[in-house]
Parts: sequence; C-alpha cells; structure tokens
Amino acid sequence: MKISARNVIKGKVKKVVTGAVNAEVTVEIPGGTEIISIITNSSVESLGLKAGSEVYTVIKASNVMIAVD
Amino acid sequence: MKISARNVIKGKVKKVVTGAVNAEVTVEIPGGTEIISIITNSSVESLGLKAGSEVYTVIKASNVMIAVD
Amino acid sequence: MKISARNVIKGKVKKVVTGAVNAEVTVEIPGGTEIISIITNSSVESLGLKAGSEVYTVIKASNVMIAVD
Amino acid sequence: MKISARNVIKGKVKKVVTGAVNAEVTVEIPGGTEIISIITNSSVESLGLKAGSEVYTVIKASNVMIAVD
Amino acid sequence: MKISARNVIKGKVKKVVTGAVNAEVTVEIPGGTEIISIITNSSVESLGLKAGSEVYTVIKASNVMIAVD
Amino acid sequence: MKISARNVIKGKVKKVVTGAVNAEVTVEIPGGTEIISIITNSSVESLGLKAGSEVYTVIKASNVMIAVD
Repeated sequence: MKISARNVIKGKVKKVVTGAVNAEVTVEIPGGTEIISIITNSSVESLGLKAGSEVYTVIKASNVMIAVD
Repeated sequence: MKISARNVIKGKVKKVVTGAVNAEVTVEIPGGTEIISIITNSSVESLGLKAGSEVYTVIKASNVMIAVD
Repeated sequence: MKISARNVIKGKVKKVVTGAVNAEVTVEIPGGTEIISIITNSSVESLGLKAGSEVYTVIKASNVMIAVD
Repeated sequence: MKISARNVIKGKVKKVVTGAVNAEVTVEIPGGTEIISIITNSSVESLGLKAGSEVYTVIKASNVMIAVD
Repeated sequence: MKISARNVIKGKVKKVVTGAVNAEVTVEIPGGTEIISIITNSSVESLGLKAGSEVYTVIKASNVMIAVD
Repeated sequence: MKISARNVIKGKVKKVVTGAVNAEVTVEIPGGTEIISIITNSSVESLGLKAGSEVYTVIKASNVMIAVD
C-alpha cells in the first residue's frame, strides 16, 4: 500500500505503553530521533506492535508545524 | 516556549515552495530524514523561513500513525 | 502495508481538482457515499490518481467527530 | 448547524466503548461500511450516544488520506 | 446539529481570503481574540461566509496544544 | 519559540483531569471563553500544568472548522 501522507519514515518500536482506549508507541528512526505516536489499543494489537517491531511512522504534511527559536 | 506536542525535532529547512494560501516546507533532520510540512504562507513569512533556516518540526503524537509491511 | 488508522475504506476516485499546492479528491465508496480528501498535488502525482482509480480512504479515528440533529 | 467539514455522513451508532477520558464509537453508514471515531466521554454523554443513535460522522477533508495498493 | 467537538465558539467573520483550493477565514470571538481557520473554498461558498457573518469556530479538543513560556 | 500554528491564544488553566494516557485541560482565555485540550499525561507533567498555570493554547488553522446556524 502506498499512501498520500507525505511523511513515511522507517523505524523500530522502542516502547509501547497501553492505556484504557489509547496506547503510546515510541519509535526510533535512523539518526536516533524518537517519534511518539498515540494510536488505539486495537491498532497496537492488530499490527502486533511490540518493542523491536519494524514499522513506519506515517504523518500527513498538514499535521507538521514549524517552530523557530 | 515549551509545547505539549510530544514531537519537537530539530532540523534545517531544505526547500520552501509557496502556493496561493499554503506553502510546502521540506526540513532535513539529523540522520538525513526529510520531513515535509504544509503551513500557511503567512507563517512562512512571519517565521522568516528559507533554505538553511534552523527550525523545529512540531508534531502532536495523536497525528502520528504507525504502519507495518 | 497495514496502518494504525482505524478507518481504511475502499472506493473509486470520481474527481480530482488540483490547486497550487493542494488537490481535492472525491472518492465514491460502496453504498454511494462520497468522501472528499485534500492532499498535496505531489501525492496525486506519486499515487497516479485520476477518475476511476481504485483507492482506499484512510482516516484516523481521532479525526472523526460525531454530530446529532 | 451547517459545518465547513466537507464530509458529513449519516449513520447509526453500533457500539460505544468508554475509556478513562476517551471513548470509541462505531458508526454504520449506508452500504454497511463502519466508521470508527474516538471522542471524549463527555461528548458521548452530552450527545446521549448509545447503540442505535442516529448520528452524523463529521470529517474534515484535510484529515482524509488516500492510499493505493 | 450538536457536535462532539468540545470547542464550539461563537464569533463573527472579519476577513475571508480565498486561494486556489483553500481559503483563510479570520473570526473574531468575544474578548477580541481572532481565530484563523483554513477551509476549502467550496465550504466558504456553501456556508455563504463573508465579513460580518455570524459563525461558530469548531475545534476538536485533541487538536488543541498547550504551550508555556 | 515561535510556531507556524496561526492560533496562539494566551489563557489560564482552570482544570486538569488526567486519564490513563491522556488528560483533559480546560483553559480560560480573555473574554471568559473556555478552550478544552486533550494532551498526554506526560505533557501535563513536563509542562507542570495545574489550575492557575499561565499557558497558551496552540491551534493549527487547518484544524479550525467553521459552522453556521
């Protein structure tokens, strides 16, 4: 599957913390940057996510803001 | 300013393409990954963004999806 | 690719209208409902979208609001 | 009320699962497609949502991505 | 129509700037704060928005970030 | 830090309700309007948010919808 989201970044799951409905997934990408994602627990289960899983983070360009010091 | 968005990633602007209302900004982060952002032209102007600008990409965790092959 | 977005709905592109940076894509899903998407022109090109293309609309559950009369 | 969100799709609530802060609402639309929404528990209460409720799912066009196989 | 978005704020349109696909709408709310919205031109037309229009800004709680100095 | 989000509105935290992963923060802005935000518990902690905290609500223009009666 190829998606319209402009940012599809390969990485590896470092940590999954599940809550009542949502879970917090930490993904490490090349260069060592960590990207944090909140998805539903159902998605964690259906994708079989756990520490070490090879994944992509997918981010729509309109959801990326820019800041300067 | 410190923000609730969990992902604040330092990088350098590589390219700015402006449209009628919105602009597309490409930011290179450490490790060489490029992150693409769509923001308004007004924001490009008020932040003074151009190739070479040192910036942060700011992404709310709930806007990061995870995909697997 | 399998994605954490809970809503992945099969459909067929009915219309693509391109702007300066963004494009508006109309997708018809089973039952005749039309779903409208705004994505970048680059995505339209890289996915090769045109009327008749078989696609999926992908929507994160946290981006779906509910309204009642 | 008429809203700028381009996607306002009539349906019927099939299931509501509440968590600590957020709830997951499943809506069936004509043609049998199910759309899943994450909203706050407060919204579930204030809208009086339960299985069988007639509702609209409301989705901003910029939150709809397109994928192809 | 009553909507799950937690923030529905009454105001008055101050300015509408239309682009190729999207438009920028400035709304003044009580207390003098201005809220800026990017919606499609089609929505501007179908809602009949122009300076002086009485409107509501509608914002999902999960799209509101918090920052501190 | 200066951010591309077009809406940066000063206010004061009125209430923080924490869940398992996410928290609901109510901010009062000048004129008395309350803005509700859902952020992660981690953000509440790292920003030190509690009733009385002086904060900014930060909202991307593309996440503001417009409705009319």
